[in-house]
Formats: sequence, structure tokens, C-alpha cells
Amino acid sequence: MKVYVDRMSQPSRAILIFCKVNGIEFEEVRIDIFKGQHRSPQFKEINPLGLVPAIDDGRIKLFESHAILRYLACAFPGVPDHWYPADDINRAKINSILDWHHSNLRFGSVSLFRNSILALVFGFPVNQEAANKGEKLLCSSLSTIESIWLKGDAKFLLGNNQPSIADLSLVCEIMQLEEKLDIFFLSQLLNEKDRLRIMGPHKKISQWVENFKAATSPHFEQVHEILYKAKAKFHAKL
Amino acid sequence: MKVYVDRMSQPSRAILIFCKVNGIEFEEVRIDIFKGQHRSPQFKEINPLGLVPAIDDGRIKLFESHAILRYLACAFPGVPDHWYPADDINRAKINSILDWHHSNLRFGSVSLFRNSILALVFGFPVNQEAANKGEKLLCSSLSTIESIWLKGDAKFLLGNNQPSIADLSLVCEIMQLEEKLDIFFLSQLLNEKDRLRIMGPHKKISQWVENFKAATSPHFEQVHEILYKAKAKFHAKL
Repeated sequence: MKVYVDRMSQPSRAILIFCKVNGIEFEEVRIDIFKGQHRSPQFKEINPLGLVPAIDDGRIKLFESHAILRYLACAFPGVPDHWYPADDINRAKINSILDWHHSNLRFGSVSLFRNSILALVFGFPVNQEAANKGEKLLCSSLSTIESIWLKGDAKFLLGNNQPSIADLSLVCEIMQLEEKLDIFFLSQLLNEKDRLRIMGPHKKISQWVENFKAATSPHFEQVHEILYKAKAKFHAKL
Repeated sequence: MKVYVDRMSQPSRAILIFCKVNGIEFEEVRIDIFKGQHRSPQFKEINPLGLVPAIDDGRIKLFESHAILRYLACAFPGVPDHWYPADDINRAKINSILDWHHSNLRFGSVSLFRNSILALVFGFPVNQEAANKGEKLLCSSLSTIESIWLKGDAKFLLGNNQPSIADLSLVCEIMQLEEKLDIFFLSQLLNEKDRLRIMGPHKKISQWVENFKAATSPHFEQVHEILYKAKAKFHAKL
């Protein structure tokens, strides 16, 4: 199986972690977004929409990270059931979180930064109204995760003691968010107060991320090294 | 099973149509969004996020329309396989379209109108930049559906001769879009040129919607009656 990814993208990292943790054999094909490789005619043969991640296992060419995770969990024997339970009820709850993710945690995070700091950095017009809406959605999404799906003392979403593909997708999103907040803070595009306003009050989220790292060690940290390196490089520059 | 819906919402209609077409017994519980019933404590017991559609079959309380459709297709015996095939490959392709839908067709449609005409109607500030981006995304989404998933002469998405839950979800979205375009046109908030620019060039989409109506008759039209009535009422007023 070929797995087409850019490790700077959070859904790409989710696919890599899933394959490594579950011993699924694959070849990683790097599609460098900054170099525009996702728009090449060769890659459009794999995903006509030109987005990573995508896979090609000889049976199917597939894109959209949640669809890929569902497929891998079902099509590869040996993936433990907790990732995407065969039972209708538990599977439905995981699907509900995955569907919610698109228009909430992901969308809030993307629209906050795309309309504020990233616009500044790349020279696009800042849209403060859209950025404010993004921040509001992002913060309410983090609260929703804590109050609904991390309610109680369980280690993972939905009161589970082992992670699912919903934990994987959402934790990778939060890693990206924390990284952005750190880099923007280091570069003085964001002050401590603003950073704390977004991530500060969410202790349960931080514990959950740590639980997930421990459950998928050492693969989680290895796949995220690119983020840590980007931050260190940035720090050194300053 | 109780099905909590507001028929003015496109994902609500998708759930109703699915149940009716497949002979799934249910009780329809109307949650009137305009009256704020989705924010009532009683409904928050069903869906803590306060959104329709949601279901409660005694085994699970579930929200997010795509998760509900997947669950119904799997948990209720007798639903024909074409709606959500058991085969990994075909199921994965349908999941890919459903996941894509969130951030493309739906998001484009919602952000076009919420930032332009609906803002005008409800007295919110118009955000022309966001509306333009929404229109661009909406139009490219319609083109993607035609060029990728309706390629060839098949009646439904992915070259299929029978519909899936992806056809159902996307067609209901397009019905909502057409309805909005018609009402805004009738109320002179939109001119013929603008209306044609969005829906005009997509002949394959129109044929596909007709195919879907025929395949799910008479339930599709019955559940959509509320839209037709809203339009007729509006027309009469003018």
C-alpha cells in the first residue's frame, strides 16, 4: 500500500500513526504541499481533488482521512476492535464524533488562524470577524469534548479505556493547534494571554492527549517529530 | 424509534426519507428550530449539542446525520445493501464522499447564504468576502460531483445504478440550495443572472436529482412538501 502524505498535515499524521501502531505495511510517499506537489498531474491520478492524505493499496485509491481510517480498520485483519468497533452501537458513537469534527474542532481551528495570523504571515487580508467566530467555535468545541465525550474518569473519548479512530483524529488536530499557538507565541504574533485564553482552561484535554501519546508510543512521537523540529528551528532563529 | 427532526433542515429530511423508503418504523418528533425547541432541556437530553436530526431507539441516542444514516443502514435488517454496501471497497468510497460533503458542498452553500442574503434578511452584517468564498466553494463542489462521481452515464454517484446514503445526503443538500435560490429570486434578493451562475451550468446534477426522486418516490416528494409549500406561500405573498 502506498500512503501519500505531508507530515505537516494533521490528517496525514493520523494515517501514518494508525498504520504504524497496527503493523500495517506501507510505503510512505511524501507529497510536499509547500512545493505544490499535491497539484501535480501524477498525484491527481491518485486523488483528483489534489489533497493529502490519500492511499492506494491496489484495490482502491481513497482520500478523506476519516474514510481512510475506517477502511484500514475494517480491511486489514489484526487491527484491534477498539479502534473502530464492529458493534453497531459503539461504531455509531465514534462515527458521530468523526462527523462532528469536520464542522467544529477542525473548522474552528482552521478559520481562526487562516483569517488572522496566517493571513498576516502570508500577506492576505485579515478578517477579524471570521477569526473571532473561528475562535469562538474552537473554544466551544474544546468544551464540548471535555463535557460530553471526556465526562468521567476514562482515559479516552466515550468513557473508553482504549483509543478509537476518533481519539486519533481529534488528538492530531489538537497537536497541530498547540504547535501553532506555540510558534505564534514565540514569534510574538500572539501574547501569553491570548494563548492561555484558547488552550489554558482545558486540563482534561491535556490529560487525554497525554493518554493517547502513551497508548501509541513510540509511533506518535516519531510521526510528530516534524512539528517539534519546526518549532525548535523557529526558536533557534529568534 | 423516535426521530427528532425539523423538516426545514436538509439532514432531517434525509433521515425521514431513508426510514420511509426502507420501511423502518419510527415516530417523528418535531423540533421547531424557529421556535428554539432545539435549545430546550428536554431535547438536550437527547442531543446535548441541541441540533437536529437526532434519534433514540432505546439502544442509542445518536446525532450527526451521516452517523445516523450509517447506523440505520447497518442496524435495521432489510435495508438493501446498495444504500451502504457491506463490501469494504464500495463502503469506503461512499464514506469518502460523505466526509468530503461537510467541508465542501454543505459548507460552501451555508457560507454563501449566511454571509449574504440571509444576513440581509435577519439584519446581520453582510460579509461579502466570505460570501464570495462560499460561492466559489459551492460552484467548485458542484463541478467536482459532476466530473468525478457522476462521470459516465450511471444514474447515481460512483457509477452506481442504485442510490447510496451519499446520494441521499447530497441530493437533500441540493434541494435546499435550489429552494433558497428560488425564494431569493422570487423576492428579488437575487437576479436571474446570479441564480444561473450558480445552478445553471450543472445539467448532470439536475438529472441526478431527478433520478433520485424517481428511485425514492413517493417519499422524497412527500418529505419535501414543506419546501414546496414555503415557496408557494412566499409566491402568494408577493
